[in-house]
This record gives sequence, C-alpha cells and structure tokens, in this order.
Amino acid sequence: MPGDDVTAAVDQVLEPSRHRTFIKSIVGGGAAAVEELVGRKVVVGGWVKTGREQGKGTFAFLELNDGSCLANLQVIVDAEVYPLSQLVATGTCVLVEGVLKKPPEGTKQRVELKVEQVLEVGPVDPSKYPLPKTRLTLEFLRDFVHFRARTNTISAVERIRDELAYATHTFFRQNGFRYVHTPIITTSDCEGAGEMFQVTALFSDAEKVEKELKQNPPPSESEIEAAKLHIKEKGEAVAHLKSSKATKEEISASVSELTKAKESLAKLEERFNMKPGIPQKDGTIDYARDFFGRQAFLTVSGQLQVETYACALGNVYTFGPTFRAEHSHTSRHLAEFWMVEPEIAFANLEDDMNYAENYVKFLCRWLLDHCHDDMEFMAKNFDKTAIDRLKLVSSTPFERISYTMAVQLLENVTDKKFENKVEWGMDLASEHERYLTEVIFKKPVIVYNYPKGIKAFYMRLNDDKKTVAAMDVLVPKVGELIGGSQREERLEVLVDRILEAGLTLEPYEWYLDLRRYGTVKHSGFGLGFERMVLFATGLDNIRDVIPFPRYPGRADL
Amino acid sequence: MPGDDVTAAVDQVLEPSRHRTFIKSIVGGGAAAVEELVGRKVVVGGWVKTGREQGKGTFAFLELNDGSCLANLQVIVDAEVYPLSQLVATGTCVLVEGVLKKPPEGTKQRVELKVEQVLEVGPVDPSKYPLPKTRLTLEFLRDFVHFRARTNTISAVERIRDELAYATHTFFRQNGFRYVHTPIITTSDCEGAGEMFQVTALFSDAEKVEKELKQNPPPSESEIEAAKLHIKEKGEAVAHLKSSKATKEEISASVSELTKAKESLAKLEERFNMKPGIPQKDGTIDYARDFFGRQAFLTVSGQLQVETYACALGNVYTFGPTFRAEHSHTSRHLAEFWMVEPEIAFANLEDDMNYAENYVKFLCRWLLDHCHDDMEFMAKNFDKTAIDRLKLVSSTPFERISYTMAVQLLENVTDKKFENKVEWGMDLASEHERYLTEVIFKKPVIVYNYPKGIKAFYMRLNDDKKTVAAMDVLVPKVGELIGGSQREERLEVLVDRILEAGLTLEPYEWYLDLRRYGTVKHSGFGLGFERMVLFATGLDNIRDVIPFPRYPGRADL
Repeated sequence: MPGDDVTAAVDQVLEPSRHRTFIKSIVGGGAAAVEELVGRKVVVGGWVKTGREQGKGTFAFLELNDGSCLANLQVIVDAEVYPLSQLVATGTCVLVEGVLKKPPEGTKQRVELKVEQVLEVGPVDPSKYPLPKTRLTLEFLRDFVHFRARTNTISAVERIRDELAYATHTFFRQNGFRYVHTPIITTSDCEGAGEMFQVTALFSDAEKVEKELKQNPPPSESEIEAAKLHIKEKGEAVAHLKSSKATKEEISASVSELTKAKESLAKLEERFNMKPGIPQKDGTIDYARDFFGRQAFLTVSGQLQVETYACALGNVYTFGPTFRAEHSHTSRHLAEFWMVEPEIAFANLEDDMNYAENYVKFLCRWLLDHCHDDMEFMAKNFDKTAIDRLKLVSSTPFERISYTMAVQLLENVTDKKFENKVEWGMDLASEHERYLTEVIFKKPVIVYNYPKGIKAFYMRLNDDKKTVAAMDVLVPKVGELIGGSQREERLEVLVDRILEAGLTLEPYEWYLDLRRYGTVKHSGFGLGFERMVLFATGLDNIRDVIPFPRYPGRADL
Repeated sequence: MPGDDVTAAVDQVLEPSRHRTFIKSIVGGGAAAVEELVGRKVVVGGWVKTGREQGKGTFAFLELNDGSCLANLQVIVDAEVYPLSQLVATGTCVLVEGVLKKPPEGTKQRVELKVEQVLEVGPVDPSKYPLPKTRLTLEFLRDFVHFRARTNTISAVERIRDELAYATHTFFRQNGFRYVHTPIITTSDCEGAGEMFQVTALFSDAEKVEKELKQNPPPSESEIEAAKLHIKEKGEAVAHLKSSKATKEEISASVSELTKAKESLAKLEERFNMKPGIPQKDGTIDYARDFFGRQAFLTVSGQLQVETYACALGNVYTFGPTFRAEHSHTSRHLAEFWMVEPEIAFANLEDDMNYAENYVKFLCRWLLDHCHDDMEFMAKNFDKTAIDRLKLVSSTPFERISYTMAVQLLENVTDKKFENKVEWGMDLASEHERYLTEVIFKKPVIVYNYPKGIKAFYMRLNDDKKTVAAMDVLVPKVGELIGGSQREERLEVLVDRILEAGLTLEPYEWYLDLRRYGTVKHSGFGLGFERMVLFATGLDNIRDVIPFPRYPGRADL
C-alpha cells in the first residue's frame, strides 16, 4: 500500500508560482509612472466593487480593488474572453492577465487594464451576498466582521491602523527603545482596580472528569479495602523473606510486587477521590487545582511588568492587547483593546512629557506622509477636520499646564455649564478635557501634577504631598489620548502608598524589589491604540477601528 | 481650602529634563568614533556589573551596563566625588556625569568615563540581592523573572528578540503586507483540537452576587406577593380612571404609578432569583449569562480570522500571543507564546514556500547585520554554531521535497535507529525532522504535500485525494520552524473536510462564507516566534527566550 501511495503522491506536481502586481503600484504613482506602465502585461487580482456590461453585452467594465490601496483599477473584459455575467456582481473575486492601457482622453482614470485572460473567478450570487450595496452603515457592517474589510471605510481604517502600528515601532526604535512582550495571562493586578477576566482550565477539566467518571465508574470502598489488604499481605511477604534470609533476587522480586500493589492503590484512591464539578476546598473554589496553581487573569496593563525590563534595559515599550471585564456598552469601551506602553529609565516627568509629545507628533506626521488617500477619504466622508487636526498636532508645541491651573481655568469658564462640578480634587471628565484642548487652547494640552487621591499608587508623590507626578495628554476630538507618570522609585514612599490604597504588600513584593535593589527614577505612559485610530480617522465608535471588536454579549469569530 | 491647595501645588516645579547618553553610542562605534568622543562631557546611567575599589580606596572602577548593548562602560570615580563603598556593589544603579577619556595604552577598553559628579544612586545590599554573582544558571534565573534581564544572557536574548520582531514587521511591510490585530478572546476554535483556556467573568460575578446577598438579603415570597397585589391595585385604578373618563393628566399619572410598581416588582424578582455560585441551566453551566453570552476562549491561532482580512486586503499578517492549555512540562512548550501568521491572497503552495523561505532568510540576515555582539556572546557561551547557522540559512536555497520523498529517504536510513517507526501516513517526529535537515541535507528543508489524515481540515486537498497542500520548514537545531498550507478555497470540498474531521458546520459558517462569496486561492503559514529565538540564540529551553514564561503551575508576575 505505501508503494501505491508513494507513486501517486510523487506525481502530485506543484502549481507554479505566479507574480501578482499590486493595484497600488499601478495607480499609486504619478503621471510619469503611469506613462511607463502603459503597454506592460500584468497579472492583477482583486474583488469587484462595481461591474457593468456595456456595448450591448460585448464587453464589461469592472472596478477592481485588491486592498493594497483605496483606489480601484478599471478593468475591461471582452465577452469573447469570459462570460461577463459571471464577473460583474459586486464581491466577485477575479485574477486576470492583461495589458495596461491609456484610456481615452477625458476619462477620470489615468490607466486601465485590458484583459487577455481571466485566470480565476470566485463568483458571487448577488441575491445572497450580505454586502451587495456600496453604502452601508457602520452599524450594519458590525454584524459582518468577516466581510466588512471589503468596504472602502473599513479597509481605509485598517490601513491607517497598520501605518500607526508600524510608525509606533519605528518611533521607539529610532529612540533606542526595545520591544518587550509583557504577559497576557497575569497573576498581578495593575491598579488594584479594574475588572479583570479570569483565565481558567477548571471548566474543561471538570468536563473531562465527568466524562471519565461516566465511562469508567470510580472504585467502591470495598475495592479500596481489598487493595489495602493486598499491600498488607505483600508487605508481610517481604518481611518474611527478609527474616528468613532469602536470596537478594527473591527479596527484590517481592519488593517489586509490593511497590506495584502500592501504585495500584494510589491510582484507585485518585479515582475514588475524583469528584465532578469545579474543585472546592473549605467551601470556596480550589484555585490551587487550576492550570497555574492559582487564580490567573487577563492583563489590564503591561506597565508593572515592563518596568522590570526598564530597570535593566533602560528604554523599553510594550505594545499588545489588554482587557477589561466592564459591562460598558458605550462607543468608547471595548473588552479587548491594544495599548502602547513605553517605560523609560532615568526619566522624570518632563522627559516623559517630551517623549509623549514627540511620539504623538511622529504618528500624525507619519499619517500625513504615508496615508494621503485614505485620510482624504476619511476627511471627505466622516470628519472634515481630520487632516487639519493631524497637521495641527504634528506642528504645534503642546500646551503644558498643571492640574491646578487647569481647574482654575475651568472654574472661570462662563460660556458653558459643565455636567460635572469643577473643583480641585475631582478627576477631569471628558467634557473638561475636551473644553481645555478644543476651546481654551485649540491645540493639544498636557495636564500634569494631579491630586494623589485620584491617581494610582505607583505614581511618584510630589514634595507638596498633595499631588503626584502624573500627566495626561489631551487632544481635540477624543480628549485623553495618553496617561502617564513618573513612577515612585522610593521604597518607603511606595510601601505607604500601596497600603494607603487599601492593597496588601504581598502581591507587589517583586515590584518593591525593583526599589530595594538598584532603584532608578523612571517614567512611562500608555496610549490607547484605538483612541489614536479614532483621533486619526474621525470615526466615533471604537468598535469600528479594531478588526474584531469584543464587548458585552459579543465576541464574533 | 482649594485656595491653599492651589498655591501649594502651583509651586510644585517640574524637575528639568536631562539628556542621557546611551552606552551603546559611546562604545558601539569604531576607533574613529571613539577618537571623536574623547573630551566630551556626558551623562550616563546604568547598573554596576562589577565594581572594585583601587589605590587603597582612593578611587573605584565600575563596569556600568545600561542595557542598550552588551558591552559595559568603564567608569572611574574618585573617593572625593562620592563614598565609593556605596557604588561598588553589583546591581547598584548610578547616574553620573563625567568626561570621556582615552585609557592608558595596553588596557582593553577604548574609552572610559572619568566621573565629575554622581547625580543619583540606587543602592544594593549585596547580602540580600538575589543576583550578586555574575554566573548563575538559567534555571536559577527563572525564579527571578523581574531581575533576570539584568544578566548578560537574558538581556542579549531580549535584544535579539526585539530585533527579530522589528525585522518581522519590516519584512512584511516591504512585501506589501498589512498588520492585522486578530482577537485574543475568541469564540472559534482554529483546529477543533488543541486545549484552550476559557475566559470568564462567571467567578467574579458569582462573588459579587454572594457579597450582595450577604449585605442585602433577597426578598421573601410574601414581599413578592405584596408587590404583585400592588400592581393589581394600580392596574385597577388605571382602568377605573379610563372608564370614568378622567382627564389625560390623571390617567397618565396613574399609568406612571403602575409602571413604577411593575419596575419595582421586576427588581424584587431579579433579587429573588439571585442564586449564589456559578449560574446553572438544565444541570450544566449557563454560559448565556457569562460576559459574552456564550463560552469564550483564548485563541490558539489567528489564522482563520486573519483569512477574512486576506480575502479583502490581499496580503496580511498577524503577530500576537497565542495559547495552549496543555499540561506540558517540556523545554519546548509554553502556555502563552507568540506567533507570526501571514496570509496571502492569490497565492498557491509554491508562493507560500517562497514567502516562508524569504522571511526566514531575511530574519537571519537581519541578525547578522544588527546583532553582532549579542550573537557573538551567544555563540561563545551557549552554541558555537549559532552564527554559522545564521550564515548558512541566510545564504543557502532551501531544499524542497515532498512528504513522500522524505519518508522514502528516512526509510533508507541505516546509520540511525528512530524511536518512532517510519511509514507513509505517519506524522514526522522531531527526530525525523532534524535528521532530514541536519544529517541528510545539512541545510533548511521544506517538506510539502502531507497525508491529509494528519493535517487540519482547512488545508487544500490535492488532486490525488490523499495529500493536502501543506508545507513545513525544517531547520537545524529546532526542526519544524514554520508550518503552512494553501487553504481549501472550494466550498464543497471544505464542507466535506469539516464533516470528515468530526466537526459541525455551524461554528464555521462565517469561514464558509468566505468561500461562498468571492472565494480566492490563498495560502499562509505560522512561525512560532520563540522557536525562532531558540534557533537564533542556540538556547535549549523555551522558558528562557520569552520575558515572562507561562507553563503549568507558573505564571509569575
């Protein structure tokens, strides 16, 4: 049989590789570039945005998009080349070979493709395709996360998101930072607050036990007794042989039987003690029997862990998913979202602000330089000010004011009534943040030195003992984009702050160790990546700027 | 009171920013660069690797490392500048200002720093510091994940890991790929196999209910009855007003009272039905009451989800954490690890192999170009062949053989007895993979067209109906580095394969949709990122190449 298989399988020849040209490299260049392309034979693949038969069915125009850029390539297929009705439905996938041509004067395309051969077709039945129309609401599209990247809006958002991610890595690399993968599964809680998802294998373990017990009932007490008796007998046999000075071989054989009998009892007892359901101890769940031997959670921030690397490698950052189990149904909250968290050794609050400002400027500049068409699309369709906002932020020095000053300014506001009362000690609400950046300063604002009562324990206590060295970067459109602080590097102060926060020291011993041995002044911040995408694109709902949004009741795919 | 606070807090002045020079930019250049640095005043910060008092305590040498590179900077401090005993302990953190000097002829350093001012010190009590010695086993260091990045080995590994991550983003960007963040929390299972961690809020919800019930006992049945009676009365009142043709205002006030009564009953009933413990329904856990309204898990692969973006944007990749809840205690398995998974539209198996080969070569070349010192360190201390391996892989075309050919070759092996029997249809074990790449070919090997029985349902069925268009990249040292395949794009074949695998169609409807509407030939692969770091560094235990290893019983920090 292997012989047959071998011959058959050896004959299985590989299909040769085929070079596909991205539509971006055809339509993305200037007029001169197009001039050079005309006459070239290329293979192009993509999905039909719109198709229409023309000239009484003698040929068809297809607007083809391959996701490499916003623009489509106009493709012309003659009826002799392929049955046109199979190509024109929106969503149809085609791979075609043809020659690039200059279209007639006066048409809006600078280049089009005359098809010589249709190589592959992935058809669509338009009566069943969920996205046959081109204009669909973002809300409607959320029910089709597996298709929505085929729309202009979501594909543009994804390209902008990709550029922001690459720009992030580039910025930090240029500034001497190393990328550290902090853990997703954690046994620490970053702030002693924040609702966390639990990670467990207890449910699946319980299912396994249940299944096992059904297939193979546990031993009875009398079976256990019999096994114990058996051990006793084997033990006596060993003792007898020893006292009667039997040969080594005889004794060792007998000992081996005793060992087997003991092992057999151990197995029986293990099965005897198997209980269906979640393991309990003293009336509560016995997490010692979970996968990690204790309760484990999804991280809410990589900051505390990345600090351990900052206290060794100097400048580091983490960029990864973080989680909140909050039953929040707003357009601003996700259960799973991405955070960028740099951490900088030998850096004080001012260094921290400098890095934050430079980073945000770099991102804005990057989008202006790399995402022209997609940004124009967003500006045209969703937020007229999107491009101006990028220009403003990338070129204007950020205002820097203390929290106390911010409160004074807000207290003096007369042209607006805030929903939340303004007074020293309060946390700034979104309405305050946006008023500061959008109305008072009309540019990004960094607010620093917040009251300690509203900030986390790890932020460095200022000499006034009332404020901590925290800072938030506020920008038009989204308000708080970045939150950061200088970290408390003094052991005794940190211990006091942990206890003041009502936390226990034990889970933070490793964090305190960083202050016990070679402590260093250091600072860091966190940027909510989806907020940055909202800021850039001008979209309003965070569920539209992450490929697979997770929120209460929904985790599609 | 705010007045007082304001004055005090406004006075809190920011400490000015201070420019720190990375040690890498001092010692990392050539002789000419050093020449230029001599005489310059710089601020340098780092941790003392070794320190020793000299000249009868008149000065001290400190070997200072700041993590920017493997090399230390030699720092000289005079006793008049700072108490030397507080500086020399291993692990001490210092920030110093001084002048760069040329050391005396014949010393190994090319440049050293004469300190003028010690700006900051983070002391260490050497009798308590866990890592006072410079030579410690990797196993010992695993108990101190918060400090181990201060060692030469782990910091070198982390820099190599960082370079591999950046090289990954760079390679895919250069090849027109977009980075897609696939979800961590998923309701899909990639292969119908693979043990998954469950993500839940049921435990914390149950705790909340328990607490709530303790503080605030649920209503009694008679309270519920009273509330029902109350509604009845209010209902009758409304009816009476309506029939007696009361004014609109009177009726509407009465209706509003009825509504309130109904709401009040609903609240009571909700509390009446509150039960401590995990919610049950029909004898099993009621996951409809969990956060996402259904069971949710940690992803084992982003492949299926990233395919949805490949079928829209063309070339995409995901690079993120993945999870396995396997009780595996080997040096090759982690419960949390990172995967790179590109997915390519309009690509067949040969395209897939080409991308995989180019990617691995690119990574090796990148390390040779960017990690010279760290790679030399690994070669010297852990694996003499590490650099040669990178050179070999980056410059040699990979051998490509069918699975059938691989089995034939292994069947003919006479100089080695394999533990696992070689026969057509078996999965290749690590011993086979390593023999192929290390002994037979002495270079990377791509094995393709595997028996369908040992591969996942989504791999494309070949015309022989016995094999699928899968491929594995095998490299010396680690064996399988990459696994990939052309995906089944034909709807009917895919349906059959899912059912053959014993799975149900329902959870895969969205995946089938991709084949129903505009299906496209596409391929992809997955690279286990930690395997790549093992391959590069020559280390043996996967727990040493990820910053925070997670495995059964351990999830530190």
